[in-house]
Amino acid sequence: MLTALKVSPLAPKGGFPSLPNINGVTFSTISAGIKYKDRTDLMLASIVPGSTIAGVFTQSATRSASVLDCQKKISVSKNEGKGFAFLVNSGNSNAFTGKNGQNAVDEIIRVTTETLKIPNTHIYTSSTGVIGEPLPTSKITKSIGKLHETLSPNKISDAAQAIMTTDTFPKGATAEVMIEGEKIKISGIAKGSGMIAPDMATMLVYIFSDVKISQKILQKHVSDLSSITFNCITVDGDTSTSDTLLVAATGQSNMVEITSTRSAASKAFKIALKAVMLDLCHQVIRDGEGATKFVEVSVVGAISKKDSHKVAMSIANSPLVKTAIAGEDPNWGRIVMAVGKSGAQADRDKLKIHLGSLLVTENGWVSPHYSEKKAAEYMKNRNIVVTVDLGLGKHSTTVWTCDLTHAYIEINADYRS
Amino acid sequence: MLTALKVSPLAPKGGFPSLPNINGVTFSTISAGIKYKDRTDLMLASIVPGSTIAGVFTQSATRSASVLDCQKKISVSKNEGKGFAFLVNSGNSNAFTGKNGQNAVDEIIRVTTETLKIPNTHIYTSSTGVIGEPLPTSKITKSIGKLHETLSPNKISDAAQAIMTTDTFPKGATAEVMIEGEKIKISGIAKGSGMIAPDMATMLVYIFSDVKISQKILQKHVSDLSSITFNCITVDGDTSTSDTLLVAATGQSNMVEITSTRSAASKAFKIALKAVMLDLCHQVIRDGEGATKFVEVSVVGAISKKDSHKVAMSIANSPLVKTAIAGEDPNWGRIVMAVGKSGAQADRDKLKIHLGSLLVTENGWVSPHYSEKKAAEYMKNRNIVVTVDLGLGKHSTTVWTCDLTHAYIEINADYRS
Repeated sequence: MLTALKVSPLAPKGGFPSLPNINGVTFSTISAGIKYKDRTDLMLASIVPGSTIAGVFTQSATRSASVLDCQKKISVSKNEGKGFAFLVNSGNSNAFTGKNGQNAVDEIIRVTTETLKIPNTHIYTSSTGVIGEPLPTSKITKSIGKLHETLSPNKISDAAQAIMTTDTFPKGATAEVMIEGEKIKISGIAKGSGMIAPDMATMLVYIFSDVKISQKILQKHVSDLSSITFNCITVDGDTSTSDTLLVAATGQSNMVEITSTRSAASKAFKIALKAVMLDLCHQVIRDGEGATKFVEVSVVGAISKKDSHKVAMSIANSPLVKTAIAGEDPNWGRIVMAVGKSGAQADRDKLKIHLGSLLVTENGWVSPHYSEKKAAEYMKNRNIVVTVDLGLGKHSTTVWTCDLTHAYIEINADYRS
Repeated sequence: MLTALKVSPLAPKGGFPSLPNINGVTFSTISAGIKYKDRTDLMLASIVPGSTIAGVFTQSATRSASVLDCQKKISVSKNEGKGFAFLVNSGNSNAFTGKNGQNAVDEIIRVTTETLKIPNTHIYTSSTGVIGEPLPTSKITKSIGKLHETLSPNKISDAAQAIMTTDTFPKGATAEVMIEGEKIKISGIAKGSGMIAPDMATMLVYIFSDVKISQKILQKHVSDLSSITFNCITVDGDTSTSDTLLVAATGQSNMVEITSTRSAASKAFKIALKAVMLDLCHQVIRDGEGATKFVEVSVVGAISKKDSHKVAMSIANSPLVKTAIAGEDPNWGRIVMAVGKSGAQADRDKLKIHLGSLLVTENGWVSPHYSEKKAAEYMKNRNIVVTVDLGLGKHSTTVWTCDLTHAYIEINADYRS
């Protein structure tokens, strides 16, 4: 089925971006035959001793064994003068496979520890793919030696390819920032296309930097930024059992370690990290299953942050709004409906809706300046911006989504066959 | 567009049921040309003096002018020895039309009061159709005289037809119950097909009975039953701005008035009323936009009622679950996902999932007795029952939904053209 998928019409035109190597990180990939033959489906990232690791994970109550294992490790993550590893497979999520799940993780980590000579608490695994099928553990464990032998600093694009499932293009993003005269680099990769309504983290995302930063500050930055990047995207309102975002800072650059959120270096790094995270999450939406439109929903004027998020997500998850956008129909009545049902405080008569720069509603009805013809013209764009001003307060949220098309139904009506 | 719609494959085989006349209620309908020519789009129900009226309405923050007006009236509903009227139009929802909305309602009620000689506080209006277009009020007001002249006790099926929008079949249900040797009759009609995720009440529903009952008890029964009938269905998770359920009890039967919830008569009537409400809400789901499967989701073993409702609605609103059902794919991994994302307390290892009578998962994984072949066979049925036992407590909820198909996208990608 996957081979039949065409590349998303919203795929980046230039293809996969050129990501700079990060000092202290090497990658390798292999076709382990986990679900399909001759498809790269396993990747290893090896990270030098002295690095710090931060992460955020799905809040699903049925999260996978890998996620549970990673969460335990992140909370006690210490720099013990040993290296770290990320080992990720596609083709099988190892979620909801009973005791098999933890057994598989344990066995994979045991072999990786032996092969890479690093502590088992330094090994983070992720699995993505079908839920509920036992992971073919031995296909993974017998590939680890080969992965170890073929590690190379310039294989991050192969790694982005290896973690894809229903994705139609690999996702990567990079940023650079000057700190203390030193060029700090960030390179990140992600996968994700369906089951996207992350709760805390999302999908699979791996970001690497040569920044020197304490684990505490790195974790704080990653958590803060998740709430305004990956937690603000939705393809279908469905939350994965495997969502994982891991960030590794190798500290290989010549700079003083960041140990406070207030320093100029910390702020500069955070801005660069945000750019990478935002770029990756937008790529996930552009590859949303069946997507033909990239949609930004901005809600301003809410009485609380929670309310602005509620309204934005209510619009972004509304099947009626999403099908209207697919049909290039400026059906703003459905936006009003989605505001109304959100549970947030709203006043019909204070609500202002814009499509792009076109004012659509004001004073509880369609604006006298509104032109259906211009709005219909605007809806033909690939990038659509919906702005809702609740007119009640000062809080705002921006989220990103895609339209709901026939292709989404096609992709999902018989995914497993 | 509407004329192109085929009748839902889940439409009742026998067509519209034969509904008994209710003593004290007369109906009339007319083609007022509100949106389309030569289509019945306006109905009047006239209800005798001495009746009691109860109702529940959408909780949307952008609810329509009619809904706001009805809500005001229900809370002060008194039996003043005068008749009541329900006046309902399809083709235009009169929602989000600014001051025009309330002006239209005021004008319609003024003319109805003059024509029917009943107090304006006794007139309940509803409007359903496109959001945001001004109601052609004069088309309605000039039809009221004709509606008044043509009232008849046996036109309830015409009324069911007049309130349809994207519905592919009219919806009606009836029940009888013996109270004090008297046969008490209930006849109800409903419309609804998309934008169905009622919050408090749903869509448009009108139920009539000759029961003799106090307003307080009738309202209590209707509110109680809404929470286990109309508040437990979802087509697309989108909540209408116009949802209205009105129940009129004419008291024309020879029985002592019900004034307590504890009496045998009250309990008997409530059971019959529930049957009618449940039947109507199931018909709405069977006519869900694009539906090919009627799906019951039962969640048991939750630690609270709230949790069981959360899990059931999370499954019933999941696009991934709904597309799998459309594809007749027993993809239970997506049910696990939907349990996980619901926010309710769940323990992966205690979760049991059944498809029909087939045990699918237990002990945190697929059951050893599970047969994918049998499950795939089961998914070919038109009626699908998903049962989730959380294994944690004693609370349960049952909700109803339909699958998500190409036809839903077709119907909604360009509804307004």
